[in-house]
Amino acid sequence: MRFIIDAMGGDRVPATPVQGAVLAVNEYGYHVTLIGPERAIRNVLKDMVYPADKISVVDAPETIGMDEPAALSVRKKKNSSIVKAVQMLKEKEVDAFISAGNTGAVVCAATLNLRLLPGVDRPGIAVIFPTLDKSCMVIDVGANIDPKPLHLLQYGIMGDAYSKHILGKIKPSVALLNIGEESTKGTEFIKEAYMMLSESKLNFTGNIEPREVYEGKADVVVCDGFVGNVFLKVTEGFAYAAAELLKRELKESTWITKIGALMTLPAFRVIKKKVDATEYGGAPLMGVDGRVIISHGSSNKEAIKNAVRVAADYINHHVNSHIIEELNSY
Amino acid sequence: MRFIIDAMGGDRVPATPVQGAVLAVNEYGYHVTLIGPERAIRNVLKDMVYPADKISVVDAPETIGMDEPAALSVRKKKNSSIVKAVQMLKEKEVDAFISAGNTGAVVCAATLNLRLLPGVDRPGIAVIFPTLDKSCMVIDVGANIDPKPLHLLQYGIMGDAYSKHILGKIKPSVALLNIGEESTKGTEFIKEAYMMLSESKLNFTGNIEPREVYEGKADVVVCDGFVGNVFLKVTEGFAYAAAELLKRELKESTWITKIGALMTLPAFRVIKKKVDATEYGGAPLMGVDGRVIISHGSSNKEAIKNAVRVAADYINHHVNSHIIEELNSY
Repeated sequence: MRFIIDAMGGDRVPATPVQGAVLAVNEYGYHVTLIGPERAIRNVLKDMVYPADKISVVDAPETIGMDEPAALSVRKKKNSSIVKAVQMLKEKEVDAFISAGNTGAVVCAATLNLRLLPGVDRPGIAVIFPTLDKSCMVIDVGANIDPKPLHLLQYGIMGDAYSKHILGKIKPSVALLNIGEESTKGTEFIKEAYMMLSESKLNFTGNIEPREVYEGKADVVVCDGFVGNVFLKVTEGFAYAAAELLKRELKESTWITKIGALMTLPAFRVIKKKVDATEYGGAPLMGVDGRVIISHGSSNKEAIKNAVRVAADYINHHVNSHIIEELNSY
Repeated sequence: MRFIIDAMGGDRVPATPVQGAVLAVNEYGYHVTLIGPERAIRNVLKDMVYPADKISVVDAPETIGMDEPAALSVRKKKNSSIVKAVQMLKEKEVDAFISAGNTGAVVCAATLNLRLLPGVDRPGIAVIFPTLDKSCMVIDVGANIDPKPLHLLQYGIMGDAYSKHILGKIKPSVALLNIGEESTKGTEFIKEAYMMLSESKLNFTGNIEPREVYEGKADVVVCDGFVGNVFLKVTEGFAYAAAELLKRELKESTWITKIGALMTLPAFRVIKKKVDATEYGGAPLMGVDGRVIISHGSSNKEAIKNAVRVAADYINHHVNSHIIEELNSY
C-alpha cells in the first residue's frame, strides 16, 4: 500500500508530518510519499533514520493556509500539497491521502476531483469518540454544514458500513443527535431525518442527546456538520478549560493537595490516553471515491502515524465497496 | 417582591422546589408563592421552619411532565402549575416566575400569555457560563431552535442590556458562535447574522469558536437555540463523563493514587463550586414581557434559592425596560 501525507498540513510543518511519516514507515513498512516544498521536507528527512526506498518526496511549492477560504484556494493553488495529492490519488499513484491541513480545502479538493461514490450526495467527516462504553462514530463533524435530511440517512448507512467492517460491530445502532429524546423534538429538518432513518433498514434507535453519546449508547451518531463540529469543538474546548482550571487551582493549593495531585497523575495519564485524539489519528472523509483521512491540525507525529493505520484499515476492509453495496440495496 | 415557584418543576417534586422556596424566604426575606398540588406542597412544608406570612400556596392540580409536548400540554392543561403561574404573573399578582419544569412548556406558556417585549420577535434562554476569565452569557440555548438571523441580533441586544445592567460590564463584547473565526465561515444563516451584528451598534467582535467561549473571550455569545442547547448539553455530558471516567480509573488504581486523589479533593471542590450550575441557579427567559427564570431540571434546593436571587436582580435592575430602550434605539 502506498500512502501520501500532506507535509504542509498541521501546526508544525513540515516537521510533524515528516516525522509521522517516518514513524509509519518504520513501524508498518508501508511506502509513504511526502508532498510539499521539497527542500523543506528533505531538510527534515536528512537527520532521520528510515529505509530509503520507503519514502519519496513530491514537490508542491504552494501551500493552502489553515484559514484560507477553501473553494477559492483549491481553484487557485493547483500546485499546493492538497490539490496535487488529491490528483495523485485520483490517478491511482497512491492508495490513500492523509492531511492535517485546511479541512475545508481537503473536503473541497476531494469532492471536486475524486467525485462521490454512487448513491452519495455529500461527503461526511466521521470522527470516532471514546465513550464510557464502546467507541462511537459521529458523522458529520464539518464537511457539510447545511445538509438535507437525506444526507443524514446516507451518513447513517456509511457509518453502519464502517462500524460493521472496520470496528467489527454486528448490528451497529444508529442514532440521531437531537436536543431531546422524543420523536417530536427538534427542527423540521431533524424530524424529517428522523422519519427517513426510522423507515430505513438501519438499526435506528431514535434520537440521542449529547450525554448519552458519551455514555456510549450508540455505535453511530448522525448530525449536520455544523452541529457536529460544535460537538467536537465544545468537547475539545471544555477538556482544555478543565485541565487549565485544575492547573491554576493546584498552583494556589496547599502542598498536601499538590503532592496528592502528583500521586494521582497515573490515573490522569490513563484517562488522557483513553480520550486522546492522538490514538485515533484521523477521521475518514466518507463518501468520496477514494480514501482520504483528515487529521486534527494539532496532530503530533504519533497521530500522523496512527492516521496511516486508519487509512490502511480503510483500504484493507474495502469500506468504500461496502458503502456502495449498502447504498445500492436501498 | 413576590415570587412564584413551580412546585412541580424538576427531578424531585415537590420536595426540592419547596425546600428551595423556604431557603429563599429565610435568606432573602422575600414572599414566595408555591404553585402545584396543594396537599403535596403542604405536606413538605409542614416539617419546615419559616415565617408563615412569607409563603403561600396556590393549588394547581394538573402537572405538565418533563417530556410532554410543550404546545399541546400548555393548551390542554389550564390547571397546571406552569400555565396558572404564568397567568398570575400576567395579572401582576407576582413579580417573577421560577420553574425547573418542562422548558418548552414554560417558554410556550410565557410567549403566548405574557407576549413579547416591543421589538422582540422571539424569546431566548440566556445561560451564564463560567469561563477561565470573566463569565459569559450564551443566548439562546433552546427557546428558539429555528431562528432567523434577525433574532440573533435581538439576542445580542438583550444580552448586551443584561451584561451592562446586571453584570455591570461597561462595553460588553458580543460574539457569534461559529465553526471558524473568519467572517466567510458558516451557513448562509450565520453569514447573514454576522452582517447584521457587524452593522449594529453593539460591540460585536466577530465569530467565536467554542474553545474561546471557555477562555472567556466574549461577554455575550449568540447562537441558534439548537446549537446553543447542544453546546450546553455537550458541556454537561462531557463533565459527567470525565468525572465518571476518573471515578472508574481510581477504583482500579493503586492505593498511592487513591490517597493522592483524596489529598487533591479540595482543589476539585473549588473547581466544582466554580463551574457548578447551582451557583447561577437559573437562566432568564429574555424577550417575554415579564420575568421568567428557567432552572435546570436537576436543580437542588440551593439552585432554586439562587434562581430567586437571579429573578430579584432582574427586577431590581429593570432589565426589561433597558431591553425596550435599546431595541427602540435601533
